[in-house]
Amino acid sequence: MTKKISVIAWNENVHEQEMQVVRDIYPQGIHGCLAGLLNEEKDILAETATLQEPEHGLSQSRLDNCDVLLWWGHAAHAQVSDEVVARVYERVLQGMGLIVLHSGHFSKIFRRMMGTSCALQWREADEKEVIWTVNPGHPIAKGIPAHFILENEEMYGEPFVVPEANETVFMGWFAGGNVFRSGLVYNRGAGRIFYFQPGHETHPTYHQPVIRKVLVNAVRYVAPRHSSAAWKNVEDAPNGAPIIPIPGYVHKTEQGLR
Amino acid sequence: MTKKISVIAWNENVHEQEMQVVRDIYPQGIHGCLAGLLNEEKDILAETATLQEPEHGLSQSRLDNCDVLLWWGHAAHAQVSDEVVARVYERVLQGMGLIVLHSGHFSKIFRRMMGTSCALQWREADEKEVIWTVNPGHPIAKGIPAHFILENEEMYGEPFVVPEANETVFMGWFAGGNVFRSGLVYNRGAGRIFYFQPGHETHPTYHQPVIRKVLVNAVRYVAPRHSSAAWKNVEDAPNGAPIIPIPGYVHKTEQGLR
Amino acid sequence: MTKKISVIAWNENVHEQEMQVVRDIYPQGIHGCLAGLLNEEKDILAETATLQEPEHGLSQSRLDNCDVLLWWGHAAHAQVSDEVVARVYERVLQGMGLIVLHSGHFSKIFRRMMGTSCALQWREADEKEVIWTVNPGHPIAKGIPAHFILENEEMYGEPFVVPEANETVFMGWFAGGNVFRSGLVYNRGAGRIFYFQPGHETHPTYHQPVIRKVLVNAVRYVAPRHSSAAWKNVEDAPNGAPIIPIPGYVHKTEQGLR
Amino acid sequence: MTKKISVIAWNENVHEQEMQVVRDIYPQGIHGCLAGLLNEEKDILAETATLQEPEHGLSQSRLDNCDVLLWWGHAAHAQVSDEVVARVYERVLQGMGLIVLHSGHFSKIFRRMMGTSCALQWREADEKEVIWTVNPGHPIAKGIPAHFILENEEMYGEPFVVPEANETVFMGWFAGGNVFRSGLVYNRGAGRIFYFQPGHETHPTYHQPVIRKVLVNAVRYVAPRHSSAAWKNVEDAPNGAPIIPIPGYVHKTEQGLR
Repeated sequence: MTKKISVIAWNENVHEQEMQVVRDIYPQGIHGCLAGLLNEEKDILAETATLQEPEHGLSQSRLDNCDVLLWWGHAAHAQVSDEVVARVYERVLQGMGLIVLHSGHFSKIFRRMMGTSCALQWREADEKEVIWTVNPGHPIAKGIPAHFILENEEMYGEPFVVPEANETVFMGWFAGGNVFRSGLVYNRGAGRIFYFQPGHETHPTYHQPVIRKVLVNAVRYVAPRHSSAAWKNVEDAPNGAPIIPIPGYVHKTEQGLR
Repeated sequence: MTKKISVIAWNENVHEQEMQVVRDIYPQGIHGCLAGLLNEEKDILAETATLQEPEHGLSQSRLDNCDVLLWWGHAAHAQVSDEVVARVYERVLQGMGLIVLHSGHFSKIFRRMMGTSCALQWREADEKEVIWTVNPGHPIAKGIPAHFILENEEMYGEPFVVPEANETVFMGWFAGGNVFRSGLVYNRGAGRIFYFQPGHETHPTYHQPVIRKVLVNAVRYVAPRHSSAAWKNVEDAPNGAPIIPIPGYVHKTEQGLR
Repeated sequence: MTKKISVIAWNENVHEQEMQVVRDIYPQGIHGCLAGLLNEEKDILAETATLQEPEHGLSQSRLDNCDVLLWWGHAAHAQVSDEVVARVYERVLQGMGLIVLHSGHFSKIFRRMMGTSCALQWREADEKEVIWTVNPGHPIAKGIPAHFILENEEMYGEPFVVPEANETVFMGWFAGGNVFRSGLVYNRGAGRIFYFQPGHETHPTYHQPVIRKVLVNAVRYVAPRHSSAAWKNVEDAPNGAPIIPIPGYVHKTEQGLR
Repeated sequence: MTKKISVIAWNENVHEQEMQVVRDIYPQGIHGCLAGLLNEEKDILAETATLQEPEHGLSQSRLDNCDVLLWWGHAAHAQVSDEVVARVYERVLQGMGLIVLHSGHFSKIFRRMMGTSCALQWREADEKEVIWTVNPGHPIAKGIPAHFILENEEMYGEPFVVPEANETVFMGWFAGGNVFRSGLVYNRGAGRIFYFQPGHETHPTYHQPVIRKVLVNAVRYVAPRHSSAAWKNVEDAPNGAPIIPIPGYVHKTEQGLR
């Protein structure tokens, strides 16, 4: 039997505490909704983690056994501990997949992995969004139509301050005149990162079948094919012995980080 | 009269204090050597800055007037203040050019802008390096031969844990059997970054005419064409008004970072 | 005195012969309009060429002296000779800049340089387009506002079947619900290519000041910084002598293309 | 039961006819060797095709059922019919994987998909090559050591005139002082392309276990995850109906390629 893809759906879980409208849409929290939809798939085993848990639910051992981490945050980015961020960052470089959702664009982890501000324009006008599938042959677009409509979403608009993506999968159109690169794939070390724009907390976005299918596809796509620690020493700088002999050179023992 | 390109050559300036061999090669320090070679050009005005100065010589006002920053560091990466790193990072996103030299691959600023560990293999064997010009038509390769040789360099070898480059300009061959992506260009926000591998402190690398020419070319290439603050608000996330009217929507005043 | 940037504005010049509305907008032809607006700049010297001229006005000697070629075509792509296309292709790899306009997306030369079909969706509905500046710090965006509006343009929509761009400068929003990557930069060999979407023949697009400014910026950006033949032998595969001696190896004379 | 990956190993099959040394190494031809090693895997079903067969063994129906095509050519690139090349090109854009081996860098199909000359330096000196795994976490590097050695290979050296790769997996070091980007991944349309440098006809390269493992990994990596025709209409330019109503606009019937 093939091992299932091990997923953690992380959520800051703040709006759920403070806003009835969010509780109404996501009675189990956004994290619960995400884990639930993923657990409908036979090849995925998803659990949840939230800001409020010890170590935000992201202990080293839990992350070491995680293949794909989903990240939803908005109001409490600053409360995420730098130590946990460093841990997630290292795991992504080692091969763990990372899916950053909606307002997670401003999370510490996404900003760190991008090396840019990840700024964008935004507007809460409950306006219509049309999402276009830019690459219909991409694994994340499997079964997704040429375009689909979200009747009410928060507008996210360009300029989106991120590096050029490795793969552009979706682009968004907003009724108020804005455009956005809505689905982007990045390779960083051995890890793959997928940013996906929809998912404002006051709209039932993650209940839309097409959105759910994108998330399932994305989990499968960013899941590591080797192992989730394919590049275990990705932060080491070894003192490398010569492959071709160098006359007179005596190799010293490994000195670790210089 | 055209304004000159305003450059700061930054150096941690530690080996120069501790090792006679480095002082013999670089009596003015590596920073002094770099500024000196750039000041031989009519269109460049270079000054120096070092770790030991207040704010490491990189006050906000000085950075605000800087077009291109060169960075040489090795033994003292950890001593660079996070506040100064954040300042340099913001200026790069705004449009300031950044040239990271040799062991600067492990500097806080380069790691931050890359979003990866920037790890690599290394070996101090005074071995021969052959550097190949991968893109002879690139502006940084202007006047540079198809290949050139450094008789003694520290080996830097793959895997080099960086994102795929926007432009690969040079690649290095080492006698001991290693290869390296030696000259890479990255775009981040409005800024351009050039990483250039040669420059171990115990070898007279920055006295080589071909290396000096690469540095001059690189300064001209990463220098901003608009202004060094072409994207002044690159870290802001404005609440954007609709371009196309949305019935019933009343735009609130700017709320800054959410 | 600095040498001016030598530009050829190429146009198939077919709609101008057949449609009064196009003649009314562009009495000198689209090529005449493009050359005219570029010649308002002190550092640019632009001439025209059309399909109907011998060798389509693109003789080897003319191309050899050209820094930047603009390409407008639509109805007569198939009539462009393969020999001329091969000539332009070689010159781009050598370092000549290429700016492909609007329906030029389906030209032989653009398809050849992209390696993809360059297909897209389209609609002639005279609808409003909002163009967003995705990278306000890019040289092609110098002096261009955060967004600008074309009251009537042909819709070009995703999916646009091109490789991921080296630099994304503009993105377009259309009233009918479509989005498009409207301004893209590609590096190919020593040459730079800029694709720019606006410019349907029945709209006065190239009379818009903001569009004209983009074109001027683009000419300056894709113009070669070395020379227009910086990589003269970009199609050769030389039999390379060893840099490091190989015992027993006798290098034969150059054998050219294998 | 999961469907196997359907592979065609294509070879021009010319050296095998002309050189005893090649027949000695590859009694079944290079194509036979490639198909044989792939057929050792339970999830792959490989067949062969050669230049000499009708339509070079690449009829439309055969290609329509092919998931991954391997391409080995050298002496007879010019004899490959343009019609077959166009057929392969379309299938790659639709989603079929393509693996281009060694001297296939100069094949019509690779040059067409790259949009560049694909030139490089070469030398037949039977020299040692060290291949470095640049991205140990990449699926194509699964089970491949940090570096491996080929005692005798033809030298292929930079500059390699190709676009920047989507993913750099391997880089090569040659005893004579050259370096090369030896394993590169490109996305084109819905298809993935892997170029892999080793494989000179007079060396038993494809008998090396590590090389065989790379090829197996590569087949799995470039194999389509949807279907091999995930983007069936990748060359069409449809007249797109508005998603958002445009007052007064009457949509005409589809007009196909303009």
